[in-house]
Amino acid sequence: MAQRHPDPTDVPTAGASFPHLTTAPPPPAPQAAPKSDPEQGGTPVGDVLAGYLRAQATEFLRALRLHRETGGGLPARAGARAGEPGGASGAGDAARALRRAARRISGSLHTFRPLLDADWSDEMRPELAWLSGTLGLEHACEARLERLLLALQRLSGAGAAAFPPQPVSSAVGAGAPDTGPAVRTAPDRSNLTVGAAKAGALLERQLTLARTRAHSTALQALGSARFHAVADQVAVLASEVPLAPAAAGADLRPLATAAEERLTDAIAALPLVTAGHPYNAVALVHGLAPDPSPHPQDAPWHQVRLLLRLHRYAREALGGGADPVDVRLLAAGQALNRHRDASEAAAAAAQAARTPRIAPATAYALGVLHADQRHEVEAARFAFQQSWLKRPVPAP
Amino acid sequence: MAQRHPDPTDVPTAGASFPHLTTAPPPPAPQAAPKSDPEQGGTPVGDVLAGYLRAQATEFLRALRLHRETGGGLPARAGARAGEPGGASGAGDAARALRRAARRISGSLHTFRPLLDADWSDEMRPELAWLSGTLGLEHACEARLERLLLALQRLSGAGAAAFPPQPVSSAVGAGAPDTGPAVRTAPDRSNLTVGAAKAGALLERQLTLARTRAHSTALQALGSARFHAVADQVAVLASEVPLAPAAAGADLRPLATAAEERLTDAIAALPLVTAGHPYNAVALVHGLAPDPSPHPQDAPWHQVRLLLRLHRYAREALGGGADPVDVRLLAAGQALNRHRDASEAAAAAAQAARTPRIAPATAYALGVLHADQRHEVEAARFAFQQSWLKRPVPAP
Repeated sequence: MAQRHPDPTDVPTAGASFPHLTTAPPPPAPQAAPKSDPEQGGTPVGDVLAGYLRAQATEFLRALRLHRETGGGLPARAGARAGEPGGASGAGDAARALRRAARRISGSLHTFRPLLDADWSDEMRPELAWLSGTLGLEHACEARLERLLLALQRLSGAGAAAFPPQPVSSAVGAGAPDTGPAVRTAPDRSNLTVGAAKAGALLERQLTLARTRAHSTALQALGSARFHAVADQVAVLASEVPLAPAAAGADLRPLATAAEERLTDAIAALPLVTAGHPYNAVALVHGLAPDPSPHPQDAPWHQVRLLLRLHRYAREALGGGADPVDVRLLAAGQALNRHRDASEAAAAAAQAARTPRIAPATAYALGVLHADQRHEVEAARFAFQQSWLKRPVPAP
Repeated sequence: MAQRHPDPTDVPTAGASFPHLTTAPPPPAPQAAPKSDPEQGGTPVGDVLAGYLRAQATEFLRALRLHRETGGGLPARAGARAGEPGGASGAGDAARALRRAARRISGSLHTFRPLLDADWSDEMRPELAWLSGTLGLEHACEARLERLLLALQRLSGAGAAAFPPQPVSSAVGAGAPDTGPAVRTAPDRSNLTVGAAKAGALLERQLTLARTRAHSTALQALGSARFHAVADQVAVLASEVPLAPAAAGADLRPLATAAEERLTDAIAALPLVTAGHPYNAVALVHGLAPDPSPHPQDAPWHQVRLLLRLHRYAREALGGGADPVDVRLLAAGQALNRHRDASEAAAAAAQAARTPRIAPATAYALGVLHADQRHEVEAARFAFQQSWLKRPVPAP
């Protein structure tokens, strides 16, 4: 079995085999080729990369300005809430755009590292990772809660009003989320239904607390000297990209190809044959084993998700930042996002079941919910396998 | 949507459409045709049916004799246990053969009713159904427990010695099953593992109790005057089949075709498009709704299972009782057996979770187990859809 890559920085051994894939690594996207060729021919190659990085840095600064205008990052204006114009949802959009640009800059610094000033690049990447991680946590808690409440609603029978999903309102920049008892309990029809209602209330309490903490952390981060230093660095990047001497006359494509090879090697190491066999029941194996969270079997899939993103950003950089999205990559990425979300939701349900002194009916509902989300994990792997192998055969 | 058939006795409206199937009703098996044609041509058609019924009656009597020889049905010899020569497993095999023959006789009386003496047939069928139902219950409890303990073992991680499946030993004719504490508890590694161990012990206790009751009921049934009356009727059937006057010159095939049409109509009413879409998550819908057992959505599938069996027996009768098994029918039948078993196991887990005063960890494990078995239900539907639609396309 090929070695797995716990960190995108690890460059896998060249020439790894592809035992699970019937497809060769995809050729460069046809849309990208005509654009990158003339640009790489007509302008210095470093300029293509510099142009992409400058565009992302500009986007970062635009999102940051929008975020400040909508009240984000200003604890004094914490009164700006969901629903108010320019309130939480504007700040939420801005925070998402900030993270989006930060990920692209960070990914490009990684993939094209030999072409960039090494000291600058090595200093900036962890700071960008810290920023996008910190800003993403609140949204992750919110999305996880919504996913779990929707699943409980589905499992409780159609039309049950027990768990209206809370509106996805708060984001960095909004006021502290409402931590009050928001779950309406359904009429007691049986102790299992009561269990589902109680499980929903418990998850709401725990994940809202986690979201509140993430919110505070994000606000602190946005007001910190560390953040201002990152923002200053990005502002410099928007006007001048510190290229390495090696960038003159270099070709971006071998580095982009290396990123793609890291991806295909990692995919080759995935158990895709099993994943392509529906209802293989692998995701719930060890579902009752001690400490089921995080699931070790999920890690290689999470890693592929990161490598797929790096591959996509590298294609974007080659295409001058305007590369049309490849449908296959998009579907594969969505499947891996779903995998990650379901994995984390399942872990949250298992974690909630460890709360002391809960009622048996609550614990039962959390057990059903945990298994449901682990099957979502399995379904996401199947979806990934299907989308990834779709290329070589004609579309149905 | 075509009407569903809660009872195989209901003859569905002719000409129901097949919206979910891309296949026409399968033609009579090629193996059956050459056999049934000469026989139906060369001998009176009633003789083909009479021959089949006589053969099944003879098999019934043979199984009954074997059952008595191995100690079955003799409460005074309750000391005959699993492992002893001629003990439980011999009696178990004999009980299975008894049920097998009883089902075939009963099914043929139903399918070919117009060709048989109506009063005799209508009197005998419910008695045979009572017998095979009573004899099957103990085995069902045993198989259900084994399925659930194996699932718990799988969910608790590889190699855990917590739930060695109990040997399938006891059957009608063996002594009362051991109701002692047979589950070995795994070392306490976490409260979830403890929960799995406790859930296993609880299920073992409840299903062993149910099995013991079923065992007693079966023993009583086999010693009853009611049973002796059935056995006497079967003994008469082994030598003389009471045909109706209409049987002279009649053709078996239209009645067999009608049985097949009842099957294909019922299958057409199944949600096969959904079932063929892996991970559709339908089986666990309402998993936390009040009173999840029995699941109403399972009923049409159970009904198809019965109709498939009737179709298979009708084919057997046409083929002179020696019709080679159609692989597709076999696979479809196995999928429906798996569906039924998983459905009942899931209900048993949900039922156990309603036991008062269980620990939250136990309830959590039962919730995971319930969801796992409901996914088995969904997997079985997928397997049925795959096997049923396999005919029209060339094998991959």
